Amino acid sequence: MLTPPVGRELVLSADAMVEGVHFLPDDPPETIGRKLLRVNLSDIAAKGATPLGYLMTVSLRRDTPDAWLAGFAAGLTLDQAEFGCFLLGGDSTATPGPISLSLTILGHVAPGMAPSRAGARSGDGIWVTGTIGDGALGLAVGQGRLADASGFLLDRYRLPRPRLGLPTGAFAHAAMDVSDGLVQDLGHICRASGVGARLEGPLVPLSAQARQAGAEWFATCLSGGDDYELLFAVAPDQEQELIAAAASRAIQVSRIGDFVAGIAEVTVIGQDGQPLPIGRGGYSHF
Amino acid sequence: MLTPPVGRELVLSADAMVEGVHFLPDDPPETIGRKLLRVNLSDIAAKGATPLGYLMTVSLRRDTPDAWLAGFAAGLTLDQAEFGCFLLGGDSTATPGPISLSLTILGHVAPGMAPSRAGARSGDGIWVTGTIGDGALGLAVGQGRLADASGFLLDRYRLPRPRLGLPTGAFAHAAMDVSDGLVQDLGHICRASGVGARLEGPLVPLSAQARQAGAEWFATCLSGGDDYELLFAVAPDQEQELIAAAASRAIQVSRIGDFVAGIAEVTVIGQDGQPLPIGRGGYSHF
Repeated sequence: MLTPPVGRELVLSADAMVEGVHFLPDDPPETIGRKLLRVNLSDIAAKGATPLGYLMTVSLRRDTPDAWLAGFAAGLTLDQAEFGCFLLGGDSTATPGPISLSLTILGHVAPGMAPSRAGARSGDGIWVTGTIGDGALGLAVGQGRLADASGFLLDRYRLPRPRLGLPTGAFAHAAMDVSDGLVQDLGHICRASGVGARLEGPLVPLSAQARQAGAEWFATCLSGGDDYELLFAVAPDQEQELIAAAASRAIQVSRIGDFVAGIAEVTVIGQDGQPLPIGRGGYSHF
Repeated sequence: MLTPPVGRELVLSADAMVEGVHFLPDDPPETIGRKLLRVNLSDIAAKGATPLGYLMTVSLRRDTPDAWLAGFAAGLTLDQAEFGCFLLGGDSTATPGPISLSLTILGHVAPGMAPSRAGARSGDGIWVTGTIGDGALGLAVGQGRLADASGFLLDRYRLPRPRLGLPTGAFAHAAMDVSDGLVQDLGHICRASGVGARLEGPLVPLSAQARQAGAEWFATCLSGGDDYELLFAVAPDQEQELIAAAASRAIQVSRIGDFVAGIAEVTVIGQDGQPLPIGRGGYSHF
């Protein structure tokens, strides 16, 4: 039972995670529940909403050790305290297959203040929070395909940082979180809004660790997914509002291109001003 | 985004279903989504609530045929129309394992009108809707362990009938739906309410098909699960209200025993007035 906050709209989102697809079998159980919660909190953040609570279903093999469950719960307990967001209900079942988790999150926002994906206009700037590509590179680290002595990238893959607290409806014509990959998710905004996007590759913010991986990983950064940063369409006269709001939350924001008139596609521009062959790529789990 | 109905409480519930655990690999896809939706609607019904909408996550193998998905969606479309309950959002992902589905339902109810499991009192009658055991016997039919020429039992297993529309808070001290098995779910009410239950076996309503299965299936009926009928604690002076409400919805209701003072356990009484050795049994998926 839940009494919804008076005079607020609800924001609802549901995401599933499957062992071997969205997390690795040897990921520590402490991070798995937190990742699922944070992935959903990232959707709440995109809407400029405040988290209210969540429901979760957990399907485990019968031989799952108690220690796994204890770690899973301990991780969630940490994040519940950090994000002020509590378990409202759910279900636990057996499965003969990989661990399957599903989480539905509820948040609330002032009526009309949640940006959709469909409001981007030609002339808006393309903005992102944080750095792009760390999660995709962290997956490569976890799979043994890339070295990462610092552990930074693997941590970014396992524990997204939902960019909560930005009043996105106050400055963004459109907003979403980057989960499938920057190019693919930007394409979602383009198709929903009926505008094109000109993404300036050299402006995409990369972490020091992502730069260190080398240029051959750049396409993975742009299309690899698991960023859980926010992506905005912001009119020039609203940029200062975005910058001030982000600064007050100590969130880095970067302008990485422009929405343009024309076909609803993403063009990625390289160092030399020419289109890069990254296209609509992006990683889709299905 | 959802604007909650003004002045109403929300009822939230989430259930997961896994192929091979909650449905059979050769169940028609048309019934699988409907079963998941109806299982959740049954929780809404227990609270006397009105369905509002649902979110669903679906994890499928990459080789799932398009025809399976088309059937799955067609079944849901039928039930959305029947129950006035629509898909609000969700997620689809790949899995290397069995199909995993998770559904979160939202309903609404007048504040304070949703009975919990904790309100049963000594002296209340134990009431159930419909007939008990058909779902468990239907599973046995599906597994080839029981014959059912009519198809009635298998249909009851595949397509629960959520008993929506009863104002349960108007007549019940406690209510829940019977999903794990009558004896086990009655035990849940006992433990939550701090009362015992004396369940009169001969009063438990059985379908003609369940009677035909024979006495050796009676324990399966009481403890087998998948009924999705409603279970109530009703004070004697509220029985008429229950009976009138059920009649107006053409829902059969039966009094099958009494809540009693003492330890919070279920005692099943047989034809001869002696306790049957069914105990707290019941089927738990995990």
